[in-house]
Amino acid sequence: MTTDRQEPKYLFSETQVAEKSQLARRFLDTRNRLNENVDQADNYLVKRFYNLDHNTYMEGALSAKSKELMGLVASTCLRCDDCINYHVIQSYRLGATAPEQQEAINVALIVGGSIVVPHLRRAYELLAELYA
Amino acid sequence: MTTDRQEPKYLFSETQVAEKSQLARRFLDTRNRLNENVDQADNYLVKRFYNLDHNTYMEGALSAKSKELMGLVASTCLRCDDCINYHVIQSYRLGATAPEQQEAINVALIVGGSIVVPHLRRAYELLAELYA
Amino acid sequence: MTTDRQEPKYLFSETQVAEKSQLARRFLDTRNRLNENVDQADNYLVKRFYNLDHNTYMEGALSAKSKELMGLVASTCLRCDDCINYHVIQSYRLGATAPEQQEAINVALIVGGSIVVPHLRRAYELLAELYA
Amino acid sequence: MTTDRQEPKYLFSETQVAEKSQLARRFLDTRNRLNENVDQADNYLVKRFYNLDHNTYMEGALSAKSKELMGLVASTCLRCDDCINYHVIQSYRLGATAPEQQEAINVALIVGGSIVVPHLRRAYELLAELYA
Amino acid sequence: MTTDRQEPKYLFSETQVAEKSQLARRFLDTRNRLNENVDQADNYLVKRFYNLDHNTYMEGALSAKSKELMGLVASTCLRCDDCINYHVIQSYRLGATAPEQQEAINVALIVGGSIVVPHLRRAYELLAELYA
Amino acid sequence: MTTDRQEPKYLFSETQVAEKSQLARRFLDTRNRLNENVDQADNYLVKRFYNLDHNTYMEGALSAKSKELMGLVASTCLRCDDCINYHVIQSYRLGATAPEQQEAINVALIVGGSIVVPHLRRAYELLAELYA
Repeated sequence: MTTDRQEPKYLFSETQVAEKSQLARRFLDTRNRLNENVDQADNYLVKRFYNLDHNTYMEGALSAKSKELMGLVASTCLRCDDCINYHVIQSYRLGATAPEQQEAINVALIVGGSIVVPHLRRAYELLAELYA
Repeated sequence: MTTDRQEPKYLFSETQVAEKSQLARRFLDTRNRLNENVDQADNYLVKRFYNLDHNTYMEGALSAKSKELMGLVASTCLRCDDCINYHVIQSYRLGATAPEQQEAINVALIVGGSIVVPHLRRAYELLAELYA
Repeated sequence: MTTDRQEPKYLFSETQVAEKSQLARRFLDTRNRLNENVDQADNYLVKRFYNLDHNTYMEGALSAKSKELMGLVASTCLRCDDCINYHVIQSYRLGATAPEQQEAINVALIVGGSIVVPHLRRAYELLAELYA
Repeated sequence: MTTDRQEPKYLFSETQVAEKSQLARRFLDTRNRLNENVDQADNYLVKRFYNLDHNTYMEGALSAKSKELMGLVASTCLRCDDCINYHVIQSYRLGATAPEQQEAINVALIVGGSIVVPHLRRAYELLAELYA
Repeated sequence: MTTDRQEPKYLFSETQVAEKSQLARRFLDTRNRLNENVDQADNYLVKRFYNLDHNTYMEGALSAKSKELMGLVASTCLRCDDCINYHVIQSYRLGATAPEQQEAINVALIVGGSIVVPHLRRAYELLAELYA
Repeated sequence: MTTDRQEPKYLFSETQVAEKSQLARRFLDTRNRLNENVDQADNYLVKRFYNLDHNTYMEGALSAKSKELMGLVASTCLRCDDCINYHVIQSYRLGATAPEQQEAINVALIVGGSIVVPHLRRAYELLAELYA
């Protein structure tokens, strides 16, 4: 019952995102620098985990955009700023609108409660830069 | 930047769901019984919370079905069986297919890790009954 | 800056609680049975942890009742039914009223979100029996 | 069974808190700046959530001070520094003493374990400035 | 820097465990029944996740026994009874002693706090049956 | 059934660790500064908790090194950077190799999911400095 998976087609590159938003650029720079170090460690199970993670968000029965927004919901209710930044950016690159991102965050807010609010505030700052 | 909200149109009633699946019926019966007791306590802030929760999943910039699936993602990565049952049923009532439900659970699995697996197993049991 | 600690004075014994509420009795019976087994294992660090836990809820700068209600808030937003049952019972034994218990749960609900709701429903069932 | 709610009477304004503690000022400044951005986004459900959150901590069956200390317990065992800062400040503004704040944190420490300790350390730094 | 992985050599089969402990048998029966249903759903990403999970606990730089005990620590501080049962059984099958299992649980208790205690109680019940 | 506990013998002092790694030095400096403030507050229950925490990681049925690695697993799946830094350093001081640390983190990654990845990235940066 598994649907074919396909790589998503991005409307914007990471470089374009980094040009649009300072917060996004700083996040992407740090993430890329730290990931290079992880790559050099060359741990077999970490690499397989990264690959499985990549496959989870491909086009399938649900669109890649829908699943990136779901990743945003999961990241927000589990309260991980780096993960929130990542999925906001990915959703943006796949054409999600600001209201769609806000509604995804609303689901995380009601499920996760006020403990989510500090992360919501920071997410809204990134959204303001991306959708300016 | 808030989109108009509208009540979703369900393809199936709770009664139809309960007739299709024993697991769903048992869950809905217990939930309804306990909610009656909460109603009788008549706590103002609880009632407002329930109302806000209801409003979060209405049709809007994202479809009600998409948001119920997002509720499923949040419930699964936060590991709440009752919440998983609820959002699987709601997604089913709004026309989500089995592969769509599975892909939502896949996002929760990769974000939340193997600690999610016992809940995934129970969710798949409910999915098997609903989509038999 | 540590205040003197004193054992709290309970208005009701565990036996009286168990006579008032079936849910409480079943919880206390299971808890006592399992704790006997933990006692027999006689693990030094577990015993010290239990002792430290006991000391945390004694009369001090804050009343024992206030701290049991705080234990209820912590248990509810961390979503542990056994811990919720325990602190509802302890708060009841120390004279907390039903509205006080509900307001403590309200704090946990707004902080912890809808993922708390299934636990709130079960807590309200116990409250209904205790304050009938 | 809902008690009347009333706005609490603060002993200190946010400005007075910010004058007393550098850590508090930096926290309040960032929080206010980010909240302005959230306000501008004008999301209906976020505004309702903020309002419900505000109502939860009003004077009622339990005092506002008691509920702010409960918010501190919840924030500490859920490990959110921003939330901890907020509830420490609110409790201070409502007249909580340093030993009362410490005892609330003690409940969160025993319930939440050593994973709470880094947050406890930072909370104690803020307490030292506020109660100097 | 990845060490070769090898399948662990178990001292006891699942059948032997189920004969020794009623709690273990009930757990393994339910787990196997639900896993059959997951197998039939045949979801590609779930199967890959299960496979990656299996590979994580193989003999390597750390022994399989050490990693099963680490799985027990993770499961206990994340408070998942099914996961605790699984790793207690796996550790037993690989020759972990009762004091080793207790010390692993002690780490989870101090890190995770009293919210862990109800799970510790149930884990000790399983340990009592396995090491009788 | 409790084994005798003994203080572990460290291969490296905290000073040697701080000389080897900038990240470790910054972490240890901040931790020591904040702990001095906690010491001055002189809270009885916090001191007892610190003491119990210290006792948990002593040599016993499991080696101190094994338990520090277990502390690393718990810290990583509960996602606390300070705790991760602490247990990586303690494990290093007790002679854990880089592959052993990576395998402990692998257990936390599979149990805890991708939400763990940002912490894994930062842990790998510290590992790179310590094992350079």
